[in-house]
Amino acid sequence: MKDLLVECVPNFSEGRDGSKVDALAAAIASVPGSSILHRTSDSDHNRSVITFAGRSEAVIESALRAAHVARELIDLNHHTGAHPRLGALDVLPFVPLGATSLESCIEFAHRAGKRIWDELGIPVYFYEVAALRPERQKLENVRRGEFEGLRAEALTDTAKAPDLGGPALHPTAGAVIVGARKFLIAYNINLRTPDLGVAKAIAKQIRASSGGLPAVKALGLALPSRGIVQVSMNLTDFEQTPIHVVFLEVVRLAAEYGVEVEESELIGLMPRKALEIAAAGLLKLSDFDSSRVVENRLESL
Amino acid sequence: MKDLLVECVPNFSEGRDGSKVDALAAAIASVPGSSILHRTSDSDHNRSVITFAGRSEAVIESALRAAHVARELIDLNHHTGAHPRLGALDVLPFVPLGATSLESCIEFAHRAGKRIWDELGIPVYFYEVAALRPERQKLENVRRGEFEGLRAEALTDTAKAPDLGGPALHPTAGAVIVGARKFLIAYNINLRTPDLGVAKAIAKQIRASSGGLPAVKALGLALPSRGIVQVSMNLTDFEQTPIHVVFLEVVRLAAEYGVEVEESELIGLMPRKALEIAAAGLLKLSDFDSSRVVENRLESL
Repeated sequence: MKDLLVECVPNFSEGRDGSKVDALAAAIASVPGSSILHRTSDSDHNRSVITFAGRSEAVIESALRAAHVARELIDLNHHTGAHPRLGALDVLPFVPLGATSLESCIEFAHRAGKRIWDELGIPVYFYEVAALRPERQKLENVRRGEFEGLRAEALTDTAKAPDLGGPALHPTAGAVIVGARKFLIAYNINLRTPDLGVAKAIAKQIRASSGGLPAVKALGLALPSRGIVQVSMNLTDFEQTPIHVVFLEVVRLAAEYGVEVEESELIGLMPRKALEIAAAGLLKLSDFDSSRVVENRLESL
Repeated sequence: MKDLLVECVPNFSEGRDGSKVDALAAAIASVPGSSILHRTSDSDHNRSVITFAGRSEAVIESALRAAHVARELIDLNHHTGAHPRLGALDVLPFVPLGATSLESCIEFAHRAGKRIWDELGIPVYFYEVAALRPERQKLENVRRGEFEGLRAEALTDTAKAPDLGGPALHPTAGAVIVGARKFLIAYNINLRTPDLGVAKAIAKQIRASSGGLPAVKALGLALPSRGIVQVSMNLTDFEQTPIHVVFLEVVRLAAEYGVEVEESELIGLMPRKALEIAAAGLLKLSDFDSSRVVENRLESL
């Protein structure tokens, strides 16, 4: 098994007690080679997301240590919050970085899930492309009923039982929903107009749910302090619909309304491959792939 | 001294005897961490270029081993060829990769030059931004007179003496001209027209020498087998004039002639930073820098 670059985005059912979130972050960072890139907590949701990355062996070990600490510190019997949840460590997706494939991330998810059951005694459900049953690809299907409902249903209904372990959920930590997905890019395009209707119309035209571009979610928003509007997007598969395809389509649609694109903005981070695809596309570079970048070539030698 | 990513592009005065060029390449590759990216030999010029890269300590060591082998195998007293030359290892530029600065490459050039004189007894001239005297920034100024002329002049004219060692040149290996420069990107844009006049006119409008874009060299060429024409370019400073600025300007000028850009092509490799700058520029990404790329962030942690 090669030690590949991977990102992990665990969601924990704790967003109020900073000392507990610190302990979760410390468990992740305690593995050499695992680096925390971002963390955010929401007290209304009572939930925290800690994004970290590194080579797969280190990242899986960090995920295990975080699941262990979450089991010790978070008791779902006493949990309140707006966000649905099934586990103390609720969701654990693995995301490809660098030249790592989504298929490798499915393997990482399955290895991490097996260790979570074997070593920590917490049952595991697999979701998204790591799902073992097609009806479990969608996270909301897996989590329906949440901790309070599923701990009873899992005992009697095999359709509700965990993929690993169980059928009883862990009495305080519930279950972990482990998966693999592509990198999600949060990307906004600002339009040089105060007309919110234009942003809403363009958002509707480009989003996948209304027949627009695949793997694009979009909303039109006003930015009143700047007197302009924004098409705010999540790109859930930058290989299927690259950033530049979205950008050029918004430029084209905006022009139909007589509006220019002011700028675009990246929220958070994006993977290297997304930038390479966008540059090659916009420059109309023929015969280009990642190996034409000197540093990539060196890393592959 | 940090061990930074760097490329090295030695030019050797041997392009006919493949076994000697193989020995030079083997000397470079004998250092763990130095990787050869490309090699080319020209028998008319009687000259070879071996492009390699890695971390600075390894790259400098490879350069020393190559200089040593060149001293053993190449005797300039018996050299013929169309290309001007002063040394067996004639030119030794260090080029920044990754997050390495040009300033760091000047240090590498000076360290390599000192070792070439101290350990191999070959005098050294420094050129480009590593020059110690302003009149030596241009390579052609340093090399004027070549081996045959300079070995006499250097003895009597301090303006011609090496920067390190000498004043006598090495009796068979001459001197090494060591420097630092930015990465040179060979980049072509193909135009959807058979009219060579359009390519020549655009090349003239964009090249620095006729008042166009800084750090751009350009020629108009016909591609008769495809029935189209090409603006063929060298970009000598992709930070001063990024690839996308060149691309957009050629698109704009071509439109003035009623011509569309068919595609662009990269010859060889380009550095990661050049691609990042182009993508951010074309996407009009505000507030973007290299640290917004996940993999870059990880490498810097």
